[in-house]
Amino acid sequence: MSVTAAKGFTAAGIAAGIKENGNPDLALVVNNGPRRAAAGVFTSNRVKAAPVLWSEQVLKSGQVAAVVLNSGGANACTGPKGFQDTHATAEKAAGILGTGAGEIAVCSTGLIGVTLPMDKLLPGLETAAGRLSEHGGEKAAIAIKTTDSVHKTSVVTKDGWTVGGMAKGAGMLAPGLATMLVVLTTDADVEAEALDRALRAATRVTFDRVDSDGCMSTNDTVLLLASGATGVTPAYEEFAEAVRAVCDDLGQQLIRDAEGASKDIKVEVINAATEDDAVEVGRSIARNNLLKCAIHGEDPNWGRVLSAIGTTKAAFEPDALDVAINGVWVCKNGGVGEDRDKVDMRYREVHIVADLGAGDATATIWTNDLTADYVHENSAYSS
Amino acid sequence: MSVTAAKGFTAAGIAAGIKENGNPDLALVVNNGPRRAAAGVFTSNRVKAAPVLWSEQVLKSGQVAAVVLNSGGANACTGPKGFQDTHATAEKAAGILGTGAGEIAVCSTGLIGVTLPMDKLLPGLETAAGRLSEHGGEKAAIAIKTTDSVHKTSVVTKDGWTVGGMAKGAGMLAPGLATMLVVLTTDADVEAEALDRALRAATRVTFDRVDSDGCMSTNDTVLLLASGATGVTPAYEEFAEAVRAVCDDLGQQLIRDAEGASKDIKVEVINAATEDDAVEVGRSIARNNLLKCAIHGEDPNWGRVLSAIGTTKAAFEPDALDVAINGVWVCKNGGVGEDRDKVDMRYREVHIVADLGAGDATATIWTNDLTADYVHENSAYSS
Repeated sequence: MSVTAAKGFTAAGIAAGIKENGNPDLALVVNNGPRRAAAGVFTSNRVKAAPVLWSEQVLKSGQVAAVVLNSGGANACTGPKGFQDTHATAEKAAGILGTGAGEIAVCSTGLIGVTLPMDKLLPGLETAAGRLSEHGGEKAAIAIKTTDSVHKTSVVTKDGWTVGGMAKGAGMLAPGLATMLVVLTTDADVEAEALDRALRAATRVTFDRVDSDGCMSTNDTVLLLASGATGVTPAYEEFAEAVRAVCDDLGQQLIRDAEGASKDIKVEVINAATEDDAVEVGRSIARNNLLKCAIHGEDPNWGRVLSAIGTTKAAFEPDALDVAINGVWVCKNGGVGEDRDKVDMRYREVHIVADLGAGDATATIWTNDLTADYVHENSAYSS
Repeated sequence: MSVTAAKGFTAAGIAAGIKENGNPDLALVVNNGPRRAAAGVFTSNRVKAAPVLWSEQVLKSGQVAAVVLNSGGANACTGPKGFQDTHATAEKAAGILGTGAGEIAVCSTGLIGVTLPMDKLLPGLETAAGRLSEHGGEKAAIAIKTTDSVHKTSVVTKDGWTVGGMAKGAGMLAPGLATMLVVLTTDADVEAEALDRALRAATRVTFDRVDSDGCMSTNDTVLLLASGATGVTPAYEEFAEAVRAVCDDLGQQLIRDAEGASKDIKVEVINAATEDDAVEVGRSIARNNLLKCAIHGEDPNWGRVLSAIGTTKAAFEPDALDVAINGVWVCKNGGVGEDRDKVDMRYREVHIVADLGAGDATATIWTNDLTADYVHENSAYSS
């Protein structure tokens, strides 16, 4: 169902020949209105790909008619030529759809530092436009895959309106592993300003807290488009919650499909002095390579959790730290707690709780273990 | 020669039975004077092991008579019992050597969260004291190994005086992989204040810039002891340079022996606005798992260098960034530069230069590639 679950949207996904292996590589998502409101959140990496620089400008108007997405090339670090290519892509799509290039968002994913084969991309856009369909959401989701093993979609339907979306990547928004691209659509009648508020509130606690490998992409983009096709304007809180639910679901799908991972790790920081402290500690734990290796080896190595906490500026006393792994409090008061042999590490999900004993704020960061497969995939594949 | 290259020092290394496999695990380094000046630098991790908490206090007097070092257990996150054990170790050594416990530094390395077998360590100290020798430096260096494949020593001899040292670990001071322990000795006649100045100046540009895996230990310790046995007081600059040279050599030995590494990567940041900027950018590149995997795969993936630079707050313009890998400027002005096929990646040493084009400051960070062996070693070995 993906991006076409909401009324007012059509989509297509085709193989334009951008990928040398002939897999689908070009997606088009069109908002047929009546409203064409939109919001976007982009990578905080200062080295931004051409399509990010372009789409950031497009989104300033709060109006997007269509999104062009390609896999097979990130169009990042490609200089003025890369930006011209993105511009030409938007112009071409605008011409086909009868709108202005300033209403066309563009997203790219793939290898950095390689220009796109425009002789394939531009004709591909005509083909994609000819295949636009209210059932095209799945094909669009498939066309944006790179190292993804499955395509990711999610839909939440409420009283008379829907939020749906698709995602690719195996990481997070800021920072993000590989490129994360997400397009969300809704047929609720919501203005750009409310879309922006809901999207930022959602990404802050979902994609922003999915930290597979601590690496931030040059291309990460999350877009939310509203067609208003149902004529229903939900209460803001209800709408924001639906957007959050779809982002949360897609974020979880990204983590479960992270490159080479064998464990999904939920790092929950509790009793922090502030939410910022909780996030800082959660990220520090989630990015600790030694811990991620231990989890891979099904070793409930709480010492590595403590040494990761110790590198942060968060408020805590070392001898007041408690750590639970899969429900067993293996560390109490900064020292040895319950018997670590009680920890059952056989399952894919691993749950680490770090109790800072410094307040009542909490945050959860999702990550993966570090595996030989991750090393293999990222040393053998030039991405 | 190690810590006994300088006159006035004796050392021993024995197997006390702390390690279950029977390997050497206890070292003793004694300063026989006439001077017993000392300086120390410790982990900046806020979760500090008992021996670090102890030795930080000891070093405040600028006077150290002996250093006890054990492998086979970090005595970290062991609560009040752990601190009592460190104290008992110092008392025991002081009793044997006829000095006060307040002049005994203690260092431990090994698994976090496990208390030391004091019934083996304390008798071991008597054995070690009985074997103290002016030729004991090598044995001491061997006794502090954990996952080190070789022991590390270095000596610089000047006009009538010497600086020597030993190191264990495969990482850095702040942060540090596994525990890094370093003991340096000199027979120059230098006061504690000058030792402290020289040591801090040296570690800042050597151990502090060796970043194997971005993980900071709870136990990292670097000590510099002066016996004054030669009666020679060198000029400060000359002495500081000798200390820096020994630290640099030992730091390089740590990197070359890093867990599972197949490549040693020199990340040189040039033309930065400030040295802090250069260090921040160098660290960001050195900690990027995706880049470290690419280097392992002998892939000169400059896009990953740029995306790592982009996550920093350093002064630079994205379209003014140049990157060279092994002498080939594969990235010019933030985009494609020379042909990446020209980059020869066959050798163990890899040299990355990032030119920020923002000033004239420079810094070099040393790191390793990320390999399946690293994952294996750290998932199979509970450290």
